[in-house]
Amino acid sequence: MKNKVLITGTVAFDDIETPSGNSGKVIGGAGTYIALASSLFTKKLAVISIIGEDFPEKEIKFLNSRGIDTQMIEKVVGGKTFYWKGKYHENMNSRDTITTELNVLERFNPIVNSEFSSSGIILLGNLHPEVQGSVISQSTNPNRFVILDTMNFWMDHALSELKSVIKKVNLIIINEEEAQQLTGEANIFNAGEKILKMGPKKVIIKKGEHGSVYLDSSQKYILPAFPVKTLVDPTGAGDSFAGGIAGILSTKQEIGYKEIKEAMQYGTLTASFCVENFGVDGLRNLDYEKLVSRLKIFKSYIT
Amino acid sequence: MKNKVLITGTVAFDDIETPSGNSGKVIGGAGTYIALASSLFTKKLAVISIIGEDFPEKEIKFLNSRGIDTQMIEKVVGGKTFYWKGKYHENMNSRDTITTELNVLERFNPIVNSEFSSSGIILLGNLHPEVQGSVISQSTNPNRFVILDTMNFWMDHALSELKSVIKKVNLIIINEEEAQQLTGEANIFNAGEKILKMGPKKVIIKKGEHGSVYLDSSQKYILPAFPVKTLVDPTGAGDSFAGGIAGILSTKQEIGYKEIKEAMQYGTLTASFCVENFGVDGLRNLDYEKLVSRLKIFKSYIT
Repeated sequence: MKNKVLITGTVAFDDIETPSGNSGKVIGGAGTYIALASSLFTKKLAVISIIGEDFPEKEIKFLNSRGIDTQMIEKVVGGKTFYWKGKYHENMNSRDTITTELNVLERFNPIVNSEFSSSGIILLGNLHPEVQGSVISQSTNPNRFVILDTMNFWMDHALSELKSVIKKVNLIIINEEEAQQLTGEANIFNAGEKILKMGPKKVIIKKGEHGSVYLDSSQKYILPAFPVKTLVDPTGAGDSFAGGIAGILSTKQEIGYKEIKEAMQYGTLTASFCVENFGVDGLRNLDYEKLVSRLKIFKSYIT
Repeated sequence: MKNKVLITGTVAFDDIETPSGNSGKVIGGAGTYIALASSLFTKKLAVISIIGEDFPEKEIKFLNSRGIDTQMIEKVVGGKTFYWKGKYHENMNSRDTITTELNVLERFNPIVNSEFSSSGIILLGNLHPEVQGSVISQSTNPNRFVILDTMNFWMDHALSELKSVIKKVNLIIINEEEAQQLTGEANIFNAGEKILKMGPKKVIIKKGEHGSVYLDSSQKYILPAFPVKTLVDPTGAGDSFAGGIAGILSTKQEIGYKEIKEAMQYGTLTASFCVENFGVDGLRNLDYEKLVSRLKIFKSYIT
């Protein structure tokens, strides 16, 4: 069974400064990264998002060329696309936001079409929890597998809405600091166990360059990151990781421990290609064959 | 072939403050931790070190009860044992030294006896590189496997002596920040490759709670740390890791990639027990059977 993948997340402009240089104004956003990553594994996927008139048509065509259905990306006449400008610190482990212009995102009310309301995989990328909740409520597939990605911003500004979304998802993907903030637990395994009590049956905690860990009620998995030679731009690493996971899980009959482990490996490798270039450029020329070659190398490092 | 293990390192007093509490004045030192860790795997091992009259005889007897030969631990009449007092920061990833009293360590001139000069494994724990070099030069075994552990202190104060020791060792075990300092490379795999050019054929870089990585000219291995539920005191974690490695390697016919991987796993687990208690207490009641039980759990997390 090939499940359709329904993705929500921003489709946006980013402007990124790192110690390696400046990206200039480039396309980005969680929805874009996730969809590009997922499209390495499936061609039955769609993004729900909102853009302004200024978003380049050729980039939409690029997404389509990768099999990504963009019919649910609403283009607002006279509107401007969400814009984020950020600067990474020397070690690239942290960044400052310089500018955030919500623009069309201020009035985003996602409408899931009938083709994708039956999707077997739903990936809720970083967005207001109310938007994420609305996408779940439009699902018509009782066997859907819902994956949530979120950020500390929503813990600060919409915690109760976020907790209500967390209750409804099958898998939450969250980074270490966010897991600590959400639970008040410094030890990430203890944090993960507290999150399991909030609803999701499965938790993945991301540790950036140090890899990721998985927990469910009876099992754990610890996976290092792939050692990239040159880290150019960490933007979108987490989204690529989640998108790769959603993409490969959509090709599975069932989603158990074995499938999650394989998905984390592919997600890790998708993210490793992403960070080797500015913006989405690391994903533009990536294909499944390149992932498989790197997987062979990665497995030799970890087994 | 069961190789004898010759260990050099401090046998000392520590006084440790962590967010969990205070140890008070307890026995410690790299030589003590390394020997206790190695003794889980072999009973043919000795420590070369120096202590004062104030070092408790019952602790020497405790080392002996674990099979550790202490004949080369010189007791200085009227002398005081090396003393270190330190305080860990909130997250336990870093610490401040409050007091260091070298005492008898100021005049340490190691003499290797004829029984252990033929040792197949030599572990040079953290000490002045000149002391480490002297121990190598007294070795009579042309097939010895020399493991070096060191610290940033010696990079700051005795860099050329340290580099001359590094040239002579088979395996260097070094932490991430030290590898970066030694090579000027931020990326630890790049740092590792630079260290390989300095002499050792094998490099292990420790990343604390994030595990460790291994490099030689053609292979890599990435191993996460074991997720301890309660981190009480990180003191001696690196020494226990190195000691576990030396101990298990002493039981091997040859030391290749497969043996190094197994040794890193055992070293990781030895360190995981060490940090669950203050000082050497985590190692006092540890035995090989407990390591094997935890190894089974660890393998289920990483494969």
